[in-house]
Formats: sequence, structure tokens, C-alpha cells
Amino acid sequence: MSHENLKVEALDLHERLKGKLTVQSKVAVTSSKELSLVYSPGVAEPCLEIQKDPSKVYDYTMKGNLVGVVSDGSAVLGLGDIGPKAAMPVMEGKALLLKQLAGVDAMPIVLDTKDVEEIITVVKNIAPTFGAINLEDISAPRCFEIEDRLRKECDIPIFHDDQHGTAIVTAAGLQNALKAVNKQKENVKIVINGAGAAGVAVLKLLLIIGYKNIIACDSKGIIYKGRSYGMNEEKEYMAKLTNLDCIEGSLEDAIAGSDIFIGVSAPNLLTEKMIHSMNSDPIVFALANPNPEITYENAIKWGVRVIATGRSDYPNQVNNMLAFPGIFKGALEVRATDINDEMKMAAVQAIATLVTDEQVAKGTIIPNVFEIDVTDHVAEAVMRAAIHSQVAQKAISLI
Amino acid sequence: MSHENLKVEALDLHERLKGKLTVQSKVAVTSSKELSLVYSPGVAEPCLEIQKDPSKVYDYTMKGNLVGVVSDGSAVLGLGDIGPKAAMPVMEGKALLLKQLAGVDAMPIVLDTKDVEEIITVVKNIAPTFGAINLEDISAPRCFEIEDRLRKECDIPIFHDDQHGTAIVTAAGLQNALKAVNKQKENVKIVINGAGAAGVAVLKLLLIIGYKNIIACDSKGIIYKGRSYGMNEEKEYMAKLTNLDCIEGSLEDAIAGSDIFIGVSAPNLLTEKMIHSMNSDPIVFALANPNPEITYENAIKWGVRVIATGRSDYPNQVNNMLAFPGIFKGALEVRATDINDEMKMAAVQAIATLVTDEQVAKGTIIPNVFEIDVTDHVAEAVMRAAIHSQVAQKAISLI
Repeated sequence: MSHENLKVEALDLHERLKGKLTVQSKVAVTSSKELSLVYSPGVAEPCLEIQKDPSKVYDYTMKGNLVGVVSDGSAVLGLGDIGPKAAMPVMEGKALLLKQLAGVDAMPIVLDTKDVEEIITVVKNIAPTFGAINLEDISAPRCFEIEDRLRKECDIPIFHDDQHGTAIVTAAGLQNALKAVNKQKENVKIVINGAGAAGVAVLKLLLIIGYKNIIACDSKGIIYKGRSYGMNEEKEYMAKLTNLDCIEGSLEDAIAGSDIFIGVSAPNLLTEKMIHSMNSDPIVFALANPNPEITYENAIKWGVRVIATGRSDYPNQVNNMLAFPGIFKGALEVRATDINDEMKMAAVQAIATLVTDEQVAKGTIIPNVFEIDVTDHVAEAVMRAAIHSQVAQKAISLI
Repeated sequence: MSHENLKVEALDLHERLKGKLTVQSKVAVTSSKELSLVYSPGVAEPCLEIQKDPSKVYDYTMKGNLVGVVSDGSAVLGLGDIGPKAAMPVMEGKALLLKQLAGVDAMPIVLDTKDVEEIITVVKNIAPTFGAINLEDISAPRCFEIEDRLRKECDIPIFHDDQHGTAIVTAAGLQNALKAVNKQKENVKIVINGAGAAGVAVLKLLLIIGYKNIIACDSKGIIYKGRSYGMNEEKEYMAKLTNLDCIEGSLEDAIAGSDIFIGVSAPNLLTEKMIHSMNSDPIVFALANPNPEITYENAIKWGVRVIATGRSDYPNQVNNMLAFPGIFKGALEVRATDINDEMKMAAVQAIATLVTDEQVAKGTIIPNVFEIDVTDHVAEAVMRAAIHSQVAQKAISLI
């Protein structure tokens, strides 16, 4: 579909539907008897039960299957800081995917503030309504503090998908990519380019998984301990945990002798020279959207063994849809109080193992969301991990 | 239905459904083409249009037909301060009625705070999501400041139904009641007993409509200017506008020689003696729920000509369902920025005129919500009033 056609069709669809979501009643009210059950006076009964035992809110209300998709509209897709109203179509789309792929009810909540304290106050205070909160399209570095604080202060899972969705799918793909080139995670050198929400989250998750040798770069080059320019709290943190030899220099310097490049940065910055400076069997995750750090065609031409992008028109799409629907479904199913590292790693494993060894041998490292039911598979793994790591409030039997 | 049966059935229904609402997608996503329209990359198009012209959020998203039903759970039904989680079933019920009666999408938002400033901060900041906010079951006197401030600070209608819903239906009934006994609003003496959300709102609306002689009472007796005990900002306000002769005394003193009693107070406090101390053809609105200030049977026995209660099992039920669905529907339809006094008075007229002169002569003063389509009738009157009073942002043609 051409860009112009896509534009016309997308605008037409949104205008015709006046939004992509609707709220439906599960019960018809056509008589005063029905009314007395769903509303006054009968509705007082579940209210009183919940007052006695607040956990009953999961039995008598929609809370347990309801996700709030919360955004301040500050980092929407590739569009940047377009504000809360302009962010609504994306949040409705996200909610739609949660419903369609995972059966989870989800509602957009867009915020008329970019102030960290105000966002935390709002989300904390609306939290009793929801079973979980999906933070969405909130710009770095504010997104880190907002998520950290809310995870501590709320009794429901808080999950910033732009960070962890990308990190989980990337880690799953990477696990298969290493299999494809027969390298070990302990030995490879990784360069991550981009210190935004996704870059930081990828780095953190890879460290948890056991990757040792990572160098992070931003638009100013290699991030190192003591760098005097362009730093923030998250980059200080990155500098502490990566680049242990405190190498200084450019992206080019970082890439020389590396095994894996992960870009969550800007289009077309990988040159043929950089690719050729990498070790044998280079692996490239070029995730800038919509135009990757290197085109698929150039990557193949210049000898990249395994390449993943954010695009649906090439193999190995790093698509958050592989992760977030199953993660929320699993977390809600067992009434998890958090989406913790164990649950994220369980999702990584679940996604990775959906690609067969034969596929991996041929360079396929990430499953296609339309070809296979990833969501239930991820949900089950996440439930097990929640139970195992003792954040599940509801016991369920898993075979 | 016995109380025990009602309890069992209501709990069973709520538990079976796990909440009364669900979110539905208006469009199926089964291919990457559909995905590219409702989500990335196509979704960027409505985002960009809204960024250029924020009013387009009404064309491309669900905002224009979405009401947030916001409560802190501090004054729920007759149950009092039961907290946000226990309030959820009521808010879902309210949302369900908005959908079912008016076709308006509505979502509960229950708040983990009772702090006035925090509630204002939260509602102001989530407002871009919604076409209107229905404040619900927030206790007096906080509800007054919260609504006043939010009406000033938000560009969408803010409507506290516990105040205005009750006031509007009461005023509509009163208009017909006066017709039934052939008295004029300028000449009658009214006693309002109860200085909570509903009492204050009834008083304010009756003053706007043109009633002159009103005495307000609370549990400590007549409210008068300079009363030294049990006052608050709202009661000072009431004292300024009512009881112009500064009468002091008990409820009994107030009732003697009055034409109309409106109770939003407590069960069974109207005695035979009080009723007999009223002027001829006394009118009684006994709205305490579930047990009114006087039973229907006693009222009839003691010679009350016209009686209304909050109960569905007697004639003349003062039921907010007559008002709020049509008011929100009308306000949303014309993208009103406020629900102002003109719109409230239009709703009063619309409800009152649905009772025929023959019915009024027989003592019926309030229409039955299940017998007649009140909602569309109210919505149309509210739209006209919004346009006339220049708070409508969208022109529509009304014949």
C-alpha cells in the first residue's frame, strides 16, 4: 500500500468509527427488577462484600481484567511529543490489541501533564480501578523514574511497554541469533546504540540474562564512567554496568571487533565499513522505526548473518505485540502484584522457543505474530514465573 | 423480591459476569494490513491531524462519546465512605446505564484519595481522554469545591450527578405538583431538610427557577445567618440566600405553615403533627433512601395531596435515571464545554412536560423511566439549551 493510500484509508477508518473502542454492558437492563440487581438497591451487596474484603473487587468487578493504557503523549511512535489528545489513536490501538490478542479489557488514559510528580500522583490515585497499568509513549528519562516509583507505590503491575516489550522481544531474538551463529552469550561483545527508553531497557535485560560485554552509545558516542557531557541519571547507571574498560570514542570505535549491534537510534547510520569491522558472523538488530539503522538489503549484501528490524515487511520483526498481550494476560490471570524480572525472562524464553531449530538455522529468529499463537504461550510462562517468584495473589492450576 | 433473594441474586450476577462492563474493539485485526491501519504505521495519520487541530480528537477517537464516571467512594448510595474498590460496582452500574439508556460509552475511574486538591489534579489531568466527567458519590462539602473548581479548569462538562440529577428531577416533579394543587412558585413556602450534596443542589436550582421562600434545615434545625454551630461554607451560602427573616428553631418550627417539604435526610422523621401543621394541600418529597422521611402509606393517611419518594415501588420516583443519561447525551452531541444552568433548566422542563395534565390531576408528577423514552427528550432539550447559551462547540440542526 502506498503512503498516500495508507493515509487516506487510515483517516477514513478512524473517522468512520469515531474511535476504535466502545464500552459494552454485559447485562441488559429492561425492567426494574434487572435494574435493582445491577444498580440500586442490589448493587449494595457486592459493595459491602468488597468493603469487608477488598480482594473481592476481583470477583465482583471488571478490575481484574482491566488495563489502563496511560500516556502523556510525549514520545509517540516516531512522532515525538505530540500531546495527549493526538496520542489517543495510538492508545486506543494498543487497547484494541490487548483485547483482540489477549481478551483483556483496556482503556486509554491520556494525561494533560508531563510533570513526573503529577503523573505519579494521577496513576497512583486511579490504580484501584485497574488490574494493571501499561505506561505508553512516555519519553526518557522521565519514564524510568515514573515506572520505578509506581512499581514501588502501587499494588498492581506497572509495565512500560516501550522499554520492556522491545527488550523482551530483542532478547528472545538474540538468544536464537546466537544459536544460529553458534556463539555464547558470555563471550560476545554487544554494542547498543541509543539511550532512550528501549535502549536502556534492552541493556538492563541483557545484563540480567547474563550478557557480560556490552558497550552503550548515544548520539555523542560511547558512554563511559566519568563522561562529562550529555549524561543523565540513566546514562550514569549504564556507564557503571557497561564498558568496564572505560573505552572512550565514537560509535565506530565501539563497533570494531563487536559481535552484535543493537540499534534503537536513527536511520542509516551503519556503514559498510562498520559492518566489516565487526567480528565474523555479525548479528544486527536495526530497530529504528520506520527506517532502520541499516536497510535489510545492505545488511545482506555486506555479509550480516542474522538481521532483525522493526518492520513488518522483512523477516524477524521485533514487534512488541509478541510480548505485551501475553504478559498482561498472564499477570492478570494470577493477580500478580508486579511484572518482575523473572516474568520478563519467562516471556523471553517463551517467545524464543516458538522458533524451531530448523528455522533458526535458516536465519529466522523471531516468530511471526500472525502465524502462531504467541500470546497464550507467553501468558502461561508468565503465570508460572509469577507464581514461582511469589508475586501471584491467586493460585491457579497449571499442568 | 425479599432482601435475602435480592442479595443472593445480585452477588451471583456480579460474580458470574466479573463486572458488568467490557471493552470492545469496533474493528477486527486479523492481518498485517488491518494492523497497519489501526496501529503503526497508519495510526500516525489521525495523530498528526489531531496534533495540527486538537478539535479533530472528536472526529478520530472515542473521546467525544466517552464519559469518565469518577468517584472516591466517600458517599456511596446509603453506605457512606466505603472506599474506591467497594465503590466500583456502583460506578460500573452507572456506566452501564449511560450506555444502555443513552448509547454513551462510560468508564468507572475510582480514586485512592479523598484529598480535594489531589482529586482535582487527577481529574484535570485525565480530562483529555473524555468528552465529559460524571462525578459520583463524593461526600459533601468536598463535592462542591471539587465540582466548582473542575468546571472552571476543564474544557469539558463536569457534572456531579448526586447534586444535579436529584435537583433536576425534584424540580420537574415540583413544577407538576404545584399544578396539581394549583399553587404558584412565587407564593409557596418550602422546607428543605438536609444540607448534603442533594439538598444544597435542590436549593440552588429552586432559587434559580424562581422559588422565593425557602427554609433549609440540617440535623441541628433551621439554618440561619449567624448560626454559631454546625456551619460550613455551603451552609453559610444557604443561610445567605434562604430564610430571609432569619427564623431560628427546629425542623418542626420550619414546617409549620409551609406548603412543600423536601427531605434528603433520614427515615421517618415526619410526624402526623408536622404534616397537619403544613398549609392545605401539602406536597411532600420524601427522598431519603431506601427509607423515606415518611412512608407513602402514612403520607396518604395524613392527607398529603402529592407525594414523591426515591423508591421504585411507589408512584413518583425521583430517579436520577430520568435526567443524567439525556443530559450527557445532549451535552456530548453538541460538544458542550459545560453543563450550565440553562441546560439543567431545560432538562427540568423536558422531564416535567412528559407528564400529561390528566396524569397531574390524578397526582402523577414524575414520569416512569421504564414507560417512556425520557432520555432522547431530555437530550434534545439540553442540546437546544447548550446551543442557545453558547457552550456548544458543534453546530447541529434541530428542527
